[in-house]
Amino acid sequence: MKLFHENKTPKVEIGARIVALQAALTRANIDAAVIVQNADLFYFTGTIQKGYLLVPSRGNPVFAVTGDLDRVKAESSIEAIEPIASLKEIPAICYRIFPSSQPHTIGLEFDVIPVSLYNRICSVFKSSRPVDISPIIRNIRMVKSPYEIDKIKGSATIFAEAISHLPQFLKPGMTEVALQSELIRLGRYRSHFGAHRVRGFNQESYYGHVLAGPRGAVPSMVNSPTGGLGSTPAFGYGAGHWPIEENSPILIDLCFGIDGYLADQTRTAVIGKLPSSLLSAYEKLLVVKKEIEELLRPGAICEEIYFQALEKAEALDLGENFMGHGPRRARFIGHGIGLEMDEWPVIGKGFRSALAPGMVLALEPKLIFPGIGAIGLEDNYIITEKGCENITPLDESIIEV
Amino acid sequence: MKLFHENKTPKVEIGARIVALQAALTRANIDAAVIVQNADLFYFTGTIQKGYLLVPSRGNPVFAVTGDLDRVKAESSIEAIEPIASLKEIPAICYRIFPSSQPHTIGLEFDVIPVSLYNRICSVFKSSRPVDISPIIRNIRMVKSPYEIDKIKGSATIFAEAISHLPQFLKPGMTEVALQSELIRLGRYRSHFGAHRVRGFNQESYYGHVLAGPRGAVPSMVNSPTGGLGSTPAFGYGAGHWPIEENSPILIDLCFGIDGYLADQTRTAVIGKLPSSLLSAYEKLLVVKKEIEELLRPGAICEEIYFQALEKAEALDLGENFMGHGPRRARFIGHGIGLEMDEWPVIGKGFRSALAPGMVLALEPKLIFPGIGAIGLEDNYIITEKGCENITPLDESIIEV
Repeated sequence: MKLFHENKTPKVEIGARIVALQAALTRANIDAAVIVQNADLFYFTGTIQKGYLLVPSRGNPVFAVTGDLDRVKAESSIEAIEPIASLKEIPAICYRIFPSSQPHTIGLEFDVIPVSLYNRICSVFKSSRPVDISPIIRNIRMVKSPYEIDKIKGSATIFAEAISHLPQFLKPGMTEVALQSELIRLGRYRSHFGAHRVRGFNQESYYGHVLAGPRGAVPSMVNSPTGGLGSTPAFGYGAGHWPIEENSPILIDLCFGIDGYLADQTRTAVIGKLPSSLLSAYEKLLVVKKEIEELLRPGAICEEIYFQALEKAEALDLGENFMGHGPRRARFIGHGIGLEMDEWPVIGKGFRSALAPGMVLALEPKLIFPGIGAIGLEDNYIITEKGCENITPLDESIIEV
Repeated sequence: MKLFHENKTPKVEIGARIVALQAALTRANIDAAVIVQNADLFYFTGTIQKGYLLVPSRGNPVFAVTGDLDRVKAESSIEAIEPIASLKEIPAICYRIFPSSQPHTIGLEFDVIPVSLYNRICSVFKSSRPVDISPIIRNIRMVKSPYEIDKIKGSATIFAEAISHLPQFLKPGMTEVALQSELIRLGRYRSHFGAHRVRGFNQESYYGHVLAGPRGAVPSMVNSPTGGLGSTPAFGYGAGHWPIEENSPILIDLCFGIDGYLADQTRTAVIGKLPSSLLSAYEKLLVVKKEIEELLRPGAICEEIYFQALEKAEALDLGENFMGHGPRRARFIGHGIGLEMDEWPVIGKGFRSALAPGMVLALEPKLIFPGIGAIGLEDNYIITEKGCENITPLDESIIEV
C-alpha cells in the first residue's frame, strides 16, 4: 500500500512559481520571503505539512521543515528541504543563504499570519525589516497556469453533477441544512477534497450557502451578496435548520474542488414554481450576466466592469435588489477563485487592475428581496487571449423540482 | 416567519463574561480590550456579525458594528451597540469612554488577528500601547458556566447517535471520505451547527478525522496524535478517497456541536475483527484511560496528569506507540473544548495550570502503529467539585461491524 500521494504538484510548476516570486521580490527590493500559511505554502512547495519556506530574491529557496520530513519530501518538489526543531534554527540557514549578513528586508504574509507568529518570526530575523508581501503573493496566484486551469475545470464539473440529483431528494419540509448535506456528500463522493479555504479574516464560509425563502435574504458577516440566517447566532450565515417551503426561491451556492483548487458556483432552485415577479427579475438578471460576460476580456479594468454591471442593473430596474439590499450590499459582482475562494481579482469597487489571460473568475449576479429571498446564479470563467471561456457545464435556467 | 434566532445567549451570561474580562484587564493593568475574532466575539457579545467590541477595564462595553445593525441588536445582549462605517470612527467612541485621553494600553487577540488588521487597529489607537490578551481570553473561556456545560452536554450526544447507525452503511470498499460524509450528514441532520472552529494558525481540521488502516498512521501538520494521509497534498490530513479494508482499524474522531459549542469524541471501528495484538493493546489503553480519569479533579496539574499517563503507558509496554510514533508524537493527551476545538487547558507538556470545576475536557488516549493504523478513543469530561463527569454516552468497546 502506498503511503503517499501520487498527485504531486509538478516540479516545473513549483519552479515557475518560485521564479515569479523572486522576480516580484527583486522588483520590490525585498531580500527574502518567509511563507507559512497553508494555501501559500501549498502553492509554493506542493505541501501543507509544517514548515517555513525561505525564498531569497536570488538563489535557491530552502524549505525549513518542523513537520514530518519524509512526508514533505514525498509531496514537495523544493530541492533544499531541511529539518529544523524550531524557528530559532532559521538564522543558521539564513547565514548560508546570505553569507555577509541577515536579509535587510523580509517579506511576510501580513494579511493572514497572526500577530504572535509575526512577533516570533521578527524576533528571529532581528536585523531585518518586515514588509508585507501578501499583495505580491495574491498577484502571482491571480494568474493560473494551464495545470491549475485543468484542476479548476475538473472542480467545476462537480457542482453540475451534484445538482443533477436534486429531483431525487429535494422535497418540501426538508431543511436547508439537510439539502446542503446531501449536495456536499455527493460532491465529496466524487473527488471533492473537502475544504473550502477562504483568505479573509473571520470569513469562514464552511460549506457554502444553501438559502431558502426569506431567511436567505437576511444579511450576514460574510463578504457576499447573500448571507443567510444560519442555524445559530454562533454560526450566523449559510444554511439553517429551517424547512424549505414550496414556491419560494432556494439559492444553492457551493464550492467544490480537486487537489485544493476550488470552483464556486450558484443556481436557483424551487419546489413548484417561483412567483412571476421573481421569474421576470431572473430573466433580466440573465441579460445583465450576458452583458458582463461580454466585458470579460484581457485589458478590461475590474472596477469598470462592476460599474457597467451596476448601470445595466439600474437600467433594467434591478438596482434596488442587485447584489444586496439597502446599505448591506456587496461592492463586487465577481472574484478570483483558486486555492482560496476569495482570490484576486475582485470585479468590484476599488479594484483597478486589468484582466489578463489565465485569470479564473466566479461571476455572481444575484438579487436580494427582503422578506422573499435570494435568486441568482454564478458561473466560473477563464480569461482567454480574446475573451473568456465559461467552464460551468450547467444550464442557466431555474431548477424546478 | 421569524427572521432572527431565538437561541440568543442570555444577557446574564454575557454580563458575567464581560465582568470576568474587566477583572482580568484590571489585574493586568490594561485599559481596554478590542475584540474581533469570531469565537471571541460570539463569547463576549452573542453574535459573530461584524464589529469591534470595546471593553474598557471599568464602565460599559461598546459594540461598534460595521455589519448589519438590526441583526446584531437581535442577537447580542450588549447594551451599547453603535453603528460605525469603519474602524476610523472608533476614536470618537473612545473619547467618550476615556474622556481625558485615549487608553494607555489596549489588549488585542495577538494569537488570531492577522498583522494587517493589527496594524490598522494600532493606527487608530495612536497613543495606546498594544498588548496581547489572548492568554486572558483563553483563561476566561477555559471555565464554562452551567449554561455552556448544558450546550456541550447536548453536543456530546450527537456523536453517539451518528455512530449508532454505522452498521447500516459501513461496508468494505467504502472510502474514508464516504464514511465521514455519512456520519457528518447524520450529525448535521440532528442539530449539529456545522462548523469546527480551531484557534491554532493553519490548524484547519475541517471535518475531523476518519482514518482507516495504514494511511491513518501517517503523521500530518495537525496538532494531534493522528494525522492521516488525506485526499491530496493540498489537504493532507483526515479522510481520503481510499477504500476501507476489512480487519483493519478505523479511527473515527469527529466534532459535533450545538450553538457553537463543540464536543470532540473518538471511537475505533472495524469491519470484521482486529488482529489480537491490536485488541490487547486496546485493552491496555483502556487501563491507561481509567487511570487518567481518576486524576481528573480540581487542583490536579495538567502537565503532571500527562506525565503520569506517559508513565502508565510505558509500564504497560505501550510507550512506543502512545500518542504517536517516533519524533512525530503529540505532547498531550487531552485538551479543553468549547467554542473552539483546541481550548485550554492542555493536558500536556508545559501546561502547569491546575484543573478547576467547570472546565470541559476531551481526553484522547490513542495508539499509532506505523504500517497498521491508529486505534484509541476520546471521551469528554466536565471537571466537577470532587472529580469529573464523563459526558460521552457511549460504550468504550471497539465497534465491530
